Amino acid sequence: MTLEWKEDRLILIDQRSLPSKEEYVECLTHEDVYLAIKNMVVRGAPAIGASAAFGYLLGAREARTGSEEMFFGHMVSVKKRLSESRPTAVNLFWALDRMERTLNQLRKLERKGLIASLESEALKIASEDIEINKAIGKNGAAIVRDGDGILTHCNAGALATVDYGTALGVMRAAVQQGKKIYVYADETRPYLQGARLTAWELMKSGVDVTLICDNMSGWVMKKRLVDLVLVGADRIAANGDAANKIGTYSVAILAQRHGIPFYIVAPLSTVDLSTPTGDEIPIEERDHREITHLGGYQIAPDNVKCLNPAFDVTPWNLITGIITEKGIARPPYNISLKKMFE
Amino acid sequence: MTLEWKEDRLILIDQRSLPSKEEYVECLTHEDVYLAIKNMVVRGAPAIGASAAFGYLLGAREARTGSEEMFFGHMVSVKKRLSESRPTAVNLFWALDRMERTLNQLRKLERKGLIASLESEALKIASEDIEINKAIGKNGAAIVRDGDGILTHCNAGALATVDYGTALGVMRAAVQQGKKIYVYADETRPYLQGARLTAWELMKSGVDVTLICDNMSGWVMKKRLVDLVLVGADRIAANGDAANKIGTYSVAILAQRHGIPFYIVAPLSTVDLSTPTGDEIPIEERDHREITHLGGYQIAPDNVKCLNPAFDVTPWNLITGIITEKGIARPPYNISLKKMFE
Repeated sequence: MTLEWKEDRLILIDQRSLPSKEEYVECLTHEDVYLAIKNMVVRGAPAIGASAAFGYLLGAREARTGSEEMFFGHMVSVKKRLSESRPTAVNLFWALDRMERTLNQLRKLERKGLIASLESEALKIASEDIEINKAIGKNGAAIVRDGDGILTHCNAGALATVDYGTALGVMRAAVQQGKKIYVYADETRPYLQGARLTAWELMKSGVDVTLICDNMSGWVMKKRLVDLVLVGADRIAANGDAANKIGTYSVAILAQRHGIPFYIVAPLSTVDLSTPTGDEIPIEERDHREITHLGGYQIAPDNVKCLNPAFDVTPWNLITGIITEKGIARPPYNISLKKMFE
Repeated sequence: MTLEWKEDRLILIDQRSLPSKEEYVECLTHEDVYLAIKNMVVRGAPAIGASAAFGYLLGAREARTGSEEMFFGHMVSVKKRLSESRPTAVNLFWALDRMERTLNQLRKLERKGLIASLESEALKIASEDIEINKAIGKNGAAIVRDGDGILTHCNAGALATVDYGTALGVMRAAVQQGKKIYVYADETRPYLQGARLTAWELMKSGVDVTLICDNMSGWVMKKRLVDLVLVGADRIAANGDAANKIGTYSVAILAQRHGIPFYIVAPLSTVDLSTPTGDEIPIEERDHREITHLGGYQIAPDNVKCLNPAFDVTPWNLITGIITEKGIARPPYNISLKKMFE
């Protein structure tokens, strides 16, 4: 499990040290959760959303004895702080909004009952995430054929969600249906989520996985090893443009060039109808040390200039379909995605 | 300097430890040179070619006192051994053939004179390489405009040649003409020649360089930061298909998609008219440890399956032009490349 709520604390598996070490981080305050998201103890849009919900709950517990004014003021700043942890994944804002809605609907309750309701809402977000992923898996498995080579980028697996995974959930469901698949996992520089998390998860699940460097994906397509691309998303705009881990845009172009279907796999909580197109999705620029250093080992010259956008945007017209818990949306997405919410 | 001949030995800068350490490897035998090429102490097609020439010379020196039969038999095995060091870069075979031709033309000479002639031929290959690179630079600089953003992949610099560089030589020549350029260097996994060598070389030369991960090249093109792509090559087939560092093929597709000219920069010794198309170019599969480990630090699960092709082939129809010492070849390359040799 990526995360677990234990009475008064959120336990997160530390994804920075996987797979070499299996360590856990305990979050006792909303600030702990803020830092865990910001520093990538936990990552992956759905996992960030669920973690933020528990962060909001921890914030409420911090102010359990304060005055009403103090309490509701505190909750505004808790939400603000958590929402500043990372800018791109919309599930973060979706989960915080949902928690705030619960708070506002029940604001007349005594404090204890209010906090209990927030706890139950956060737990519901987490358990729903698993159910949603299983529904996504079932919907997606229909397009996977026996013997398919499947390329994926970054980690859209159990570790990116509460459990089961989105893109990797589709693979799990296909395997459960008895289909044999061959997965190619991009290592996903600079943070190596593909090498460290996706390869590890799939090996643990007994799925045939081959690790490649990001710059090999075009060549494995040329060699006809790839029949299908499945990736996650951090935010999907109303028109279907999808932000996902840096490099996804290039993979989508390469897939189109080779006539390979390219699917985004994500829960509807990743779809943000209030963001009209990908141009309005903020892209986080992360620390350049992620590129220049690896495990304390320096791999580039001192003071070299870098770019380190954490995400890029794949335009809707490169996306064959968007696999969600309500089915597979097809272009034009401004119509098909809207329908999913009806 | 990448390599230097000193009386009785070849001195190579150890490119595996750059830029953190400036160390040198001394080759006293042809076997030392074989290992230096195989283990990437020296890399880059023209540098491999020149090193192999000195390896051949060292082989001749090893047998300087043997019988005629023994000497010529030894030289056959020296050539064979050196030619097995790496399979893709054709400059290796080109340089060995040239050395062998010298040997055969002068086989009637007494041993001492023969070895002196081989030494002068190897030195000529090395010094010609620098002159050729300067001519390439001049020819290529003509297509670089003031203010251009230039993307490059791997290292086609001074370190890939005897000195000056091919793709980086074009950049040097453009800068000498007073043009301001902005270089984007792909880090080039798994061996990080872009991060370790290209960024380092360009910073030392005062050229504006920004290091990016390989999976960012599509996105920086989308952001209109790139006006031109310049890369080297390890072997160019008669039809213009070009083998170069893994990832070049993907960059070429991304460049075409964004309407950005994509040039191969290489000496004519990289053109192999006896290889009809890229399909016939052997692609070296290297040790998977290059992907799973970095500086002794493990970055992927134990026993994960990998693919590690060192090169890929960019088909001629993705290549805008091939910049050589004799000018810029344009499609159809089966005609234009052949003309260059007349």
